[in-house]
Amino acid sequence: MPDTLLSARNLAFELYEVLDAEALSQRPRFSEHNRETFDAALNTARSIAENLFAPHNRKNDEHEPQYVDGGAQLIAEVKPALDAFNEAGFLNATRDFDAGGMQLPTLLSQACFAHFQAANIATASYPLLSMAAANLIEAFGDELQKSRFLQPMIEGRFFGTMALTEPHAGSSLADIRTRAEPAGDGSYRLKGNKIFISGGDHDLSDNIIHLVLARLPDAPVGVKGISLFIVPKFMVEEDGSLGARNDVVLAGLFHKMGWRGTTSTALNFGDHGGCVGYLVGKAHAGLSYMFQMMNEARIGVGMGATMLGYAGYLYSLDYARQRTQGRLPDGKNPLAGQVAIIEHADVRRMLLTQKAYVEGAFDLALYCARLCDDSHTLEDAEQREQAGQLLDLLTPIAKSWPSEYCLRANALAIQILGGHGYTRDHPVEQYYRDNRLNPIHEGTHGIQSLDLLGRKVGQHGGAALKALSRQIIATCGRAEPFTKLDDLRQPLESLLKRLSDVTFGLLGDLQQGRVNEALADSALYLKVFGHLVIGWRWLEQAVRAEQGRLAGNLADAVFYSGKLQAARYFLLREVPGCHHDLDLLEERDDTCVTMQDAWF
Amino acid sequence: MPDTLLSARNLAFELYEVLDAEALSQRPRFSEHNRETFDAALNTARSIAENLFAPHNRKNDEHEPQYVDGGAQLIAEVKPALDAFNEAGFLNATRDFDAGGMQLPTLLSQACFAHFQAANIATASYPLLSMAAANLIEAFGDELQKSRFLQPMIEGRFFGTMALTEPHAGSSLADIRTRAEPAGDGSYRLKGNKIFISGGDHDLSDNIIHLVLARLPDAPVGVKGISLFIVPKFMVEEDGSLGARNDVVLAGLFHKMGWRGTTSTALNFGDHGGCVGYLVGKAHAGLSYMFQMMNEARIGVGMGATMLGYAGYLYSLDYARQRTQGRLPDGKNPLAGQVAIIEHADVRRMLLTQKAYVEGAFDLALYCARLCDDSHTLEDAEQREQAGQLLDLLTPIAKSWPSEYCLRANALAIQILGGHGYTRDHPVEQYYRDNRLNPIHEGTHGIQSLDLLGRKVGQHGGAALKALSRQIIATCGRAEPFTKLDDLRQPLESLLKRLSDVTFGLLGDLQQGRVNEALADSALYLKVFGHLVIGWRWLEQAVRAEQGRLAGNLADAVFYSGKLQAARYFLLREVPGCHHDLDLLEERDDTCVTMQDAWF
Repeated sequence: MPDTLLSARNLAFELYEVLDAEALSQRPRFSEHNRETFDAALNTARSIAENLFAPHNRKNDEHEPQYVDGGAQLIAEVKPALDAFNEAGFLNATRDFDAGGMQLPTLLSQACFAHFQAANIATASYPLLSMAAANLIEAFGDELQKSRFLQPMIEGRFFGTMALTEPHAGSSLADIRTRAEPAGDGSYRLKGNKIFISGGDHDLSDNIIHLVLARLPDAPVGVKGISLFIVPKFMVEEDGSLGARNDVVLAGLFHKMGWRGTTSTALNFGDHGGCVGYLVGKAHAGLSYMFQMMNEARIGVGMGATMLGYAGYLYSLDYARQRTQGRLPDGKNPLAGQVAIIEHADVRRMLLTQKAYVEGAFDLALYCARLCDDSHTLEDAEQREQAGQLLDLLTPIAKSWPSEYCLRANALAIQILGGHGYTRDHPVEQYYRDNRLNPIHEGTHGIQSLDLLGRKVGQHGGAALKALSRQIIATCGRAEPFTKLDDLRQPLESLLKRLSDVTFGLLGDLQQGRVNEALADSALYLKVFGHLVIGWRWLEQAVRAEQGRLAGNLADAVFYSGKLQAARYFLLREVPGCHHDLDLLEERDDTCVTMQDAWF
Repeated sequence: MPDTLLSARNLAFELYEVLDAEALSQRPRFSEHNRETFDAALNTARSIAENLFAPHNRKNDEHEPQYVDGGAQLIAEVKPALDAFNEAGFLNATRDFDAGGMQLPTLLSQACFAHFQAANIATASYPLLSMAAANLIEAFGDELQKSRFLQPMIEGRFFGTMALTEPHAGSSLADIRTRAEPAGDGSYRLKGNKIFISGGDHDLSDNIIHLVLARLPDAPVGVKGISLFIVPKFMVEEDGSLGARNDVVLAGLFHKMGWRGTTSTALNFGDHGGCVGYLVGKAHAGLSYMFQMMNEARIGVGMGATMLGYAGYLYSLDYARQRTQGRLPDGKNPLAGQVAIIEHADVRRMLLTQKAYVEGAFDLALYCARLCDDSHTLEDAEQREQAGQLLDLLTPIAKSWPSEYCLRANALAIQILGGHGYTRDHPVEQYYRDNRLNPIHEGTHGIQSLDLLGRKVGQHGGAALKALSRQIIATCGRAEPFTKLDDLRQPLESLLKRLSDVTFGLLGDLQQGRVNEALADSALYLKVFGHLVIGWRWLEQAVRAEQGRLAGNLADAVFYSGKLQAARYFLLREVPGCHHDLDLLEERDDTCVTMQDAWF
């Protein structure tokens, strides 16, 4: 049976040939682990994903959560899947052994989680959100909050949410209006409305812990006046038992184009004046706490987008091998049998494009997970800091690039199936609908592009950008001994050089206060930067493939040839196209920004 | 109230400033018409589209046709809408006055029909398919067939379908297997299965006339052995009354991602041995008949894709003007109010991109409709032929380019609405789902690209290609007096020159028998050719805008500025990006075609 969620061979290539996961077991934190324990975790993930997540992916879509008696009701298959997920330890994959976790590297936990995202992105979203909320309490909550709220989340008895967006404030969090008044007993009373809260209600857990951004009465205006609160759905008594229902009301469910199995809710806090919340950490520091957790969430979104692309790629590949249709252009004899459509040049192009997009994005997501590990567990403090800075820089790419290009991969998967791909008899149309959310949530493309150009590239005197350049140059150096890689390396070197020049110019403009002008084409900058990063990751994969080929057997030679061809596709066919984009950035083309409202 | 289906000002610009619709009334066939009758027809179309089509667009999507007692049942709103459409004369807009038609130019009938496609693509599909079937009988049927089947179709009492695809033969019509045996009485008995037959069953008309491709017992293999048959759902007696049910069975309905209001059916012909059909025209000539009708159908698909893009553009434009969010990058003061999102550079970019795509595609669709008129009504036979050849050449572009780029426009419309755009509370997500069909039906992108490069550009010794070059050069000549257009004209001239060179080389390869190699990257060729054509149409619009501006009032100046800016966007930001694609075509890059099945 072919792989349906991701290619097991490719995963092994990434972990053990590209990213050297085994080296992580040399570090004290991961010393109990080795390739055997990693593979055991991966196999368990794959098995649960295939047997309990994938089977209800379509049903999740066809039977979206219903509003019943003030709550959201899900299909029955979700809870057993999540129970198995939790029992196998994936809810706390990276958490300390002492705290009931598996103490796995983030690299491995992301690789495990990727299987669930490929199998059923909607069901996988509940633990993803819950883990993000738990991590926030773990990092910034006090001991009482940890014992009362975090511990049941770790045990999977409580789930969590992140409640940021309000009807008039989505991308612009500076404008949130939800208020929190001190109640005099150390707790607060919240009042406000939140929308698009994923997992905001369901019947999967005993309780739901909302992490809510709100303003204290004395809050400064803007982002520096936002505080973070724990707001439980049910009150939790001192002995840990559940108390009365808190004043949080499910005002309604949003009905979406895709990702339908995940409830998207409108929540009213404090309609009846009794919404109890608990301040997390310091007053007015809520947004900075939230952002410290954002990297992992954004990489998680990127990985989700990648896995939707990956599942669609594998499905359309299998279909293209089975389905016969027509003949090659030079073989019009109608008496000859029809050929498998993978024989058609254009189908092959669409498959190779998908491979280049999804395996490029997959590599980047895992590379970022590895950086996450490095930023926490490298011995040297300076190196830890550097890894963290590089991760910061790459995060907008890791989030946005797969959201754009793995969605394109999904469109190609539909195209390969033709009319069949447009029907709901095959999963590719659902992947396409599901994936369309990814360019929007956790910061739109526009927000990511401003984060990249307006903040990340200039941060720390450009230290992270320099570190990235060094990494790219190092990969080019590793590629040099392989003359076959010369024509792959050159486009990357040329793009790096020009993008560096353009970046230098744009940072100069920013420094001189031409802020609006410098940021006007940030979306184009994001695209080129993304292609540089993915091009780099493909050259790195090509190097590892060449190294592997030197050491490998015949079966591996076939695998490595595919890697080289996909690298070739991306570096020769996609990367050089960025020079026109760079021309526009260099010229500060102002066509879009000088367009007037009245002219539309 | 803003325009919701298309911009009335832009339509007037196209008809009366770019394409000179009024000149058509000089021709004998259209001598009863003038701008007043044209505008009356357009206003009626707009009114029916707004009042009877648009209101049930979402309901069509939410309540797709149901299989009930062997038939397909639609929501109640469809029939009254189509009755009004028919009563107003749109079913026979181009047909002779004598035959009950309005004898409108195709240019005008397409412009009218565009309103219905923007308002409700699914409901508009029934008459579109029916008209295509009626045109086929009119062109190739005998007198008995015309009186028995065509006349009721003209009256709107019978609807029609085109039944081509079979489970194992979609793009490859050479392989259809449906058989037709002579019954001895001049009629035939058909046996076979068809799928994806749009409008294959419904409760909108007294009868359904299927136009079915099938093979006679003595048929040559391949495409030269396909014949065309009329197969009515109910038999029609000599007096025109309906007889027994024919042996055509609705085997099932396909459930699609979008376009849900149009039934997509599996039909079984002759399961019980009694499926009566009537041969249209000559034996074995069916496919050539079908192809003679294909131009209009494919332009119709292109127009449909365009209008879905157009409706999404207008919706997101209105939203961007109403919705406030955040501040400009240089104005971070949170005390200042939030700005309308149209003020954000990236939102403006997404709006301008949409405008460039949908108005470029709209112009091309109408230009092709004008060519259709020219090919039938120009006085000079040679000029008629030239117009027909140019239309043939442009048809794959008119079908595929809007299907790709107006779908991208729909993705941008969603992005502008953010999370709201992803919900079913707004129409943009439906446009996006509906539009995803267009790159597939009536010939996929792959088929269109082979039609263009493998057939159309080399046809008649390249006569059509030369005619297109002359047209483009003529537009450049008209642009020359306007120095403001210099930097718009140059990228087009440079693209024309290089694409001509590349085409010459590829045709040489084809002539020398390197067929597979020459056609391997036909999809890339289709993209560049499309950008050339749309770039040309934008320069033409820019010329007309400059001419109009010289003659216009202040309100028009605003409109013309928008045209110039969109032309600038397309010619400076999109067209030059094609040079990298041309590099690949020139080098005969073989990365995709040398990728092996086993390497994936």
